[in-house]
Formats: sequence, C-alpha cells, structure tokens
Amino acid sequence: MTLALERIRHTALREKIMTANEAAEFVQDGMLVGMSGFTGAGYPKALPTAIAERAQAIHAEGKPFQISVITGASTAPECDGVLAASGSLKLRSPFQSDPTLRNDINAGKIAYTDIHLSQIEQQVRFGFFGAMDVAIIEVVGITEEGKLIPSMSVGPDNQWVKSAQKIILEVNTQQHAKLETMHDVFADIGTPPHRHPLLLLNPNDRIGSHYIDCDLDKIVAIVFTDAPDRNSKFAEPDAISQRIAAQIIEFFEHEVKHGRLPENLLPLQSGVGNVANAVLADLQHSRFENITGFTEVLQDGMLDLLLSGKMASASATALSFSPDALQRFNDNIDFLRSRIILRAQEITNSPELIRRLGVIGMNAMIEADIYGNVNSTHIMGTRMMNGIGGSGDFARNAYYSFFVSPSVAKDGAISCIVPMVSHHDHTEHDVMFIVTEQGMADLRGKSPRQRARLIIDHCAHPDYRDMLRDYYNRAEQSGGGLHTPHLLNEALSWHQRFVETGDMRLK
Amino acid sequence: MTLALERIRHTALREKIMTANEAAEFVQDGMLVGMSGFTGAGYPKALPTAIAERAQAIHAEGKPFQISVITGASTAPECDGVLAASGSLKLRSPFQSDPTLRNDINAGKIAYTDIHLSQIEQQVRFGFFGAMDVAIIEVVGITEEGKLIPSMSVGPDNQWVKSAQKIILEVNTQQHAKLETMHDVFADIGTPPHRHPLLLLNPNDRIGSHYIDCDLDKIVAIVFTDAPDRNSKFAEPDAISQRIAAQIIEFFEHEVKHGRLPENLLPLQSGVGNVANAVLADLQHSRFENITGFTEVLQDGMLDLLLSGKMASASATALSFSPDALQRFNDNIDFLRSRIILRAQEITNSPELIRRLGVIGMNAMIEADIYGNVNSTHIMGTRMMNGIGGSGDFARNAYYSFFVSPSVAKDGAISCIVPMVSHHDHTEHDVMFIVTEQGMADLRGKSPRQRARLIIDHCAHPDYRDMLRDYYNRAEQSGGGLHTPHLLNEALSWHQRFVETGDMRLK
Repeated sequence: MTLALERIRHTALREKIMTANEAAEFVQDGMLVGMSGFTGAGYPKALPTAIAERAQAIHAEGKPFQISVITGASTAPECDGVLAASGSLKLRSPFQSDPTLRNDINAGKIAYTDIHLSQIEQQVRFGFFGAMDVAIIEVVGITEEGKLIPSMSVGPDNQWVKSAQKIILEVNTQQHAKLETMHDVFADIGTPPHRHPLLLLNPNDRIGSHYIDCDLDKIVAIVFTDAPDRNSKFAEPDAISQRIAAQIIEFFEHEVKHGRLPENLLPLQSGVGNVANAVLADLQHSRFENITGFTEVLQDGMLDLLLSGKMASASATALSFSPDALQRFNDNIDFLRSRIILRAQEITNSPELIRRLGVIGMNAMIEADIYGNVNSTHIMGTRMMNGIGGSGDFARNAYYSFFVSPSVAKDGAISCIVPMVSHHDHTEHDVMFIVTEQGMADLRGKSPRQRARLIIDHCAHPDYRDMLRDYYNRAEQSGGGLHTPHLLNEALSWHQRFVETGDMRLK
Repeated sequence: MTLALERIRHTALREKIMTANEAAEFVQDGMLVGMSGFTGAGYPKALPTAIAERAQAIHAEGKPFQISVITGASTAPECDGVLAASGSLKLRSPFQSDPTLRNDINAGKIAYTDIHLSQIEQQVRFGFFGAMDVAIIEVVGITEEGKLIPSMSVGPDNQWVKSAQKIILEVNTQQHAKLETMHDVFADIGTPPHRHPLLLLNPNDRIGSHYIDCDLDKIVAIVFTDAPDRNSKFAEPDAISQRIAAQIIEFFEHEVKHGRLPENLLPLQSGVGNVANAVLADLQHSRFENITGFTEVLQDGMLDLLLSGKMASASATALSFSPDALQRFNDNIDFLRSRIILRAQEITNSPELIRRLGVIGMNAMIEADIYGNVNSTHIMGTRMMNGIGGSGDFARNAYYSFFVSPSVAKDGAISCIVPMVSHHDHTEHDVMFIVTEQGMADLRGKSPRQRARLIIDHCAHPDYRDMLRDYYNRAEQSGGGLHTPHLLNEALSWHQRFVETGDMRLK
C-alpha cells in the first residue's frame, strides 16, 4: 500500500481513496458514464465489476439499473464483458470487440452506436449525447499538483475528465510508473467557431502537456487496482498474411522508385489484427530506414520496429501488446519514451493531421465488392462484429488507403470478394487498394467497371472467380446502367446462400 | 478587340493569341487534359468545341482520338456535352452533370471516376493520374506580371497550371473584369511530408494571393471568348422545399436555445439544387444575423443573403447563378467583392477547415435507407446521376450533416426512404439528420434500430410507411442479427420492382 500511495503525490487527494464497491455507489440508473480504455488498454479494471454487482443487486430488488457507456474504443471481458452480462448496459459507443457484449448487441438487447473514433470526443463535447454524469478513468498516478498521469492509452480521457460532472479514478499500480511523460495531452481542441489549427507538422511533434488537467473538486473517488490490460496474444504471421505483406512492401518499393513516396516512406497507420501485424513484421527485413508511425494502436509489430531502430518514432493513442511484447516494452521503457508519443484519439485520428502528414492507412476488412466498396463491421449484413473504429478516419484522409483480407474464410465457404458488400463502411470513393493473398488491385483513378475486372482477376480466390465473372457479365447484359452494373435481385444472394446453406458456393 | 486585348496586360503574351481551332492542335490523342470549370462556372467555352471538331475530323480519317478530361466539377453542354457527343472522351473525372455525357457513361462508353472534390487536385499532384499534358483554363485576364486572374470559379485551376506541361488560356471577356481581387489563391498546399497547417481561422480569412502564378513558358495559346456560363434557372421554392427548409431553421432555433449553436449559427454549406436554395431563401426571413457561408458553390440563395446583409461573408470555389442572379451579382460587384472569397476546391472542401470551422452541411440526396445510409449518385443502383461532388467532404467533417429530399419522386412511384439504398455514398456513420417534407429524423447517437423507427415514422411518405414497417418487422423476425435487421433477398427488391413495373409500390 505504501508503494501504491506514492502514486498519488497530491497527498490531500489520498482522502478520496475507497473501495470499488463504495465508488460504484456514485453510478446511478440512467447515467451517461465515460470510461477510459482503447483496444484493451487503459480501461478501468475494478469499477465495471463493482457496477455490475451493484446492478444485479438492484435488479434482484426488482428495480431498474441501466447506464450508457462511452469509452475510447474496445475494453476487455472484465469491463464490457461483466457490464453486458449483468444486464446493466443500455447504450454503448463508439466501439467494442467483446464476445458477451457483441452477442447482446446482436440479440437486440443493447443499443450500439458505431462512430468514427475521431468524432466521439467532439460529439460529447458538443452536447450531442447529453450531459456526462461520471467519468471512470484509469491512471498511472497523480502528480503533486493533482494532474493526472494517463495509463497505456490516452483515448478520450482528457475530454471525459472535462465533460463529466463526477470523476472516479482507478490508479493501476501494475502499469509502469515510467509511462509518465510518454503522453502528449492537447489541452482543448475547442468547439467551433473557436478552433485553431493543430500545429503538428511531424508525427513525433509534441503539442501538449504530459498530464491531464483535472478539476480536483470533481474527483469523488480514487480506487487502487493492480491488474493487467487485456494483452491478447498475436498469431505468428502465416503464409497468407506474409503474401499480403510482401505485396504491400513491393508496392512501396515501386512507389519510391517512381518518386511518389519518400525513401523512408510516409507515416504508417496499421489497423488491429494479424495481417496488419504481418506487414510491420515484414518491414523489419526491408531496406526502409527511419520509418515513422502515426497510428491509432501501437501493437507488437510496431514495437519491434522501434526496438530494432527501423522505426524512428511512433505516435498512437493506445499501447496494445501481447504479454511477451509488454515485457519487451517494460524492459526498454527508457529507450522507448523518446520514441513513442501517446495522444488523444481526436489527435491520432484527426482528418486534418492524417491528410497533412500523408499517412499510409492499412486496415483489415470483412469483405469488399467488385466495385471497391468495403464492409468492415457486419457479418452477413446484419450481425455486428466490432465496429468501424478509426478505419474511416484513416481511409478517407490517407495518402494511400489499403484494405486487406485473406480471399476466403471458413475453409473457403465465404468469399471476401462478393458482388455487393452486405454492409457499406467505406465506399468506392475511399478505397485505393484491395489486397488479398491472391494479389493486389490498384483502384486509383479507375471507373467502377475497370475496378471490377482488377478486383476479380487479382484479389478473388480462384474458387470464386468464375462465379464473380458470371455475375458481372450477366449484370452487364441485364439492361441496367453500365456505370455500375448490378443484378439487384442477386446482389446479396451470396450472403443469403451462406445464411441458408453455410456456403457461398453453388452446390 | 481593343477592349479584349486590354485583358492581357502582359503585352508580350499577346503574341500567343490564336483561334480556338489553332489552339486545339496542341491536344493530341491519349492526352490527360485538365480543364477549369466548377458547377457550370468558369469552364472553357471555345476549346471543347474545337477539340470535338478536331476529334471528329480525325475519326473520319479512321484514326483514334480520345482524351481523358479532369475538371473541377460539372461544366456545361458546350464543354462536356460536345466532347461526349464527339466520341473523344475516354475518361472523365471527378464530377459531371451533363445529359449527353451522363448517357454515354451509363451506356458504358466513357469511364467515369467519381471522386471527392477535395481530393482530385492532390491525387493529380501526387501523380496518381499520370502526367497532365495540357491545361485549358478560363481566365478573366492576365496581369502585367503575367499572373492569371481566375474567372467565376477557382476550382482546380491553380493545380492544373502547376501540373500541366502546356497551358491554353481562354480569356472570356463576358466575365466581369472586376472579378479581379475576389479570389484567394493559396500558392501550394504541398505534398507530404512537406505540408503545413492551413492557417484559416474564419470563413472570410484570406490566406493567399489574388492571382495564379504561372510559368509563362508553358503558355502555348491564348484564345478569346465572349460567352456566358451555364447560368441555369432555379425553380421557385415550392411547398415541399419550404416545408423542408422550415424544419431545418426550426432546428437551428432549437440548437441555439440549448447552447449548441452560436446566435449567428456556424458557417453554412449548401449543396446544389432547389431544396438547398429554399433553405437559404427561408433564412432571409429568419431572426439570424451575421450569418457566414463556407461552401463549395455560391448560388442565388446565398447571393441574396449577402445582398440583404443577412450574411456577412461567403467563401466558395464557384459562383453559379441564374441569369437574373448574375445580373444582381454584376450590378453589385463592388459591394460583394469584400464579402465573397473564391478559393481552390482543395480549400473550400478541406476536411481540416470544414471540421475546424464547424460547417453546417446541407446536401440533397437521391434516397436514404431506414438505417441512415445515403445514396447521392446512382439511380436504381446502376445508373450514374451526377456524382458525389463535395457532399462527402462536408458530411464527414461537418458540425451538423443534413441530407434532404422530397419523400417521394415520380408522382409517388419512387420512395426516397427504402429498406436498403441501392448505392452507398454516405454511410450510417456520416449522416446526422434526414429531412423530408414529412419530417426530420435526428440520428445523432442512435443505434441502427433506433434510427429505423425515427426515419420510418418521421421521414417516409405515408404511402410507404406500412411497407417499410412490414419490411423492418419481418427483418427483425427473420433470425438474422438484430443490430441491423435485414432481409437479404428483399433488401433491394423495391428497386427491382421499380425497374420491372415503374412503381416501387405493391399493386
């Protein structure tokens, strides 16, 4: 406890220390609660369970208890999972990836609002979600002046601290104390018409303070925790991921040669997942040096590029590591502190900055269609997977926007290239490159029909190419417009067939 | 001719004066040609016809002649129309609205690449379209130093002048000479990693020069024209447009009252068309003062707000007036010159600036679906209407993003609210408000199913409400996911029925 107490250097604030169960009393039925947490990093570890237990006790009395929870992005079973399981979630935004919560969303039990991650802070600030009652924020510690030291993510923390009427802090002693000064907190992006340019010219520029300013009168409780982040394991890059990665890196070589890309590339954004991680792993063996990262989530692949010296610096809003990578991070934290900058998600995902810096956006997808529309969120058009996350912030504003996926899923029963995507998250206007292990389609400057030929020939799995050509040829002959030929009564039939038979292929 | 010659104050350049037919010789088969022109304003008036005639003569010899043409946005029959009719267009980007060209696109004769209007300049600058061979730019005149005075639009002119290997200028003496100094040309937005913030803090800030700098050695021809812009007439606001407008203005009142909007609103963007024009006409009679505009195209409605003093200033990339409004503009050009700023489309449509300024985006749509996805471009999923234009630049980054349409078209045979849009231009993540004459749906912070109820109840025409509810209810019962319930084999059946029977309604 002594060591823990040292994390609260503002001694008067130590009077606010209480148990999670005591702190949970501040959370009432109907409240809008802002929580820290981004991609399984920096979310509260104790309060969600305490709130869930409180909810169940209240439900047992036959009384209502439901809250709306807005975070930075995804959290973990001990946050989203326990809250969903307790039946205490009414609305959840802007992103999630928890199995229990996902099931409840798809069962129609919880309203889920899936929002571009750059926009959630400002939508709360503008008042579009109503007043925020309580913020529950994980921190590494509190300074002598009462400033907050963020944890493994900054996410929306600064905004929630400003917006909320009451603040509950979780001081997590398991997070490295030396995270202090790795953050860059921009005080206030402001509300129109009182906004200014973000004066960030390079990915590693610092434009804010190391700490979150906090109105200490709003702090109603401080709770100690000593628990790890989600720390999901990565799969080792497989042959399919490696083939996707190799094509992207070959493309970089080609663009550098033609003068469309600097020798050290442009700042990299890499979405979450094994394929994105494989691209970064592959860069380790490329000839590129002094690479930079300007991304949302910094994961194992980017960490290793920093440790090897291939990557000069990386800017992100969250550190989301496997257990092994976390160990490497903690072991090298002094080396990394000058190379990693953690910022608010409003900054890492800012359209202004992504376009100015010319970020290379690489994101996973569920499926693409023959005209270059991309589905990032829905399974068979109706079931939410995770959410759009920051993929729209990056794809729309990127210098190059890549969407990657293996060409088939479920042992070939699902084609990731379909006649029409069953849900649209990124339209034909925002997708420059589609890459599968089969090949890459460069859609820049192409009309829909030019794209269709490239995507079918280069990206689709051989098992599905003839089916796609057949669809496309019949669509061209159907008498509809020839700008974007479609058979309206067949466009979604592959998904329907999968729902009915478990296979998109014709028997 | 004397008066015309005075428009070229750099006397040595007068040696480059020639006929349009002579100048057209510089345009060769296979070339990429950049033209000025934005929403029927400031496009070249003489060269397109000369190129079309040249193409037909070459075709008559059995030889090929096709070019790719990139403009700012739409032009007019004497530009896009004659080029399409001559069979000389291979590729067209980023926007069009010409009947002849549209037919050829939908007949599969011309490849059309439909791009966010903020992105076309940078995609050319980055080299994504290859080298630009010739730029054909309408100007009002040329200064003593050889700087170009833009015309009724700035659009992409500055970029095309920089990118093109050869430049042909059309000096249009019908455009008012006093347009000089109304423009604000930002010299170079730059290419990553060498880009800087756009230091524009208010809609009427000037951040550039009045003129386009031009390498005079690249000017190969100067042609005189004396012809009007497209100058399309507006329909007088009808009862439907007025009902849509009244709801938006009532919403503004409500938001001002709740402190979410300043007393003079935020800068207005208004898409092209009668409904958008009606909103602006209605503002004339509202209590709001000192309104500002930060829009793409300045049309009659905004002009009259400026002339009445209701609007303090307006920033746009093009002036697109009816004949009557053009007369009012020309008559009051000295008054207006301090109130109107014409900029490159890369600036007017900049995500950085739209988000910073908190622009209120109001755009027309073809259809929306019950979950808030919007189709702005395609008729029945396959036929291109015009293009996405700047609607995506504004909707994604706006403080408020409105999409408006009458609830039905074709005497009720088409519902603008459908189970699933037949083409997606703006996804559920980018649409805050849908407004028809039936009512308004406020989608902020709502889940898909919450949106469906609002859109069906508030926006759909009564003739279609029960059909929509029936679809939605059966989708909920179908056993698919309940995040976004859909019947995959029926989602596009309304469009298919219209194609087959000419009516979306069940008989």
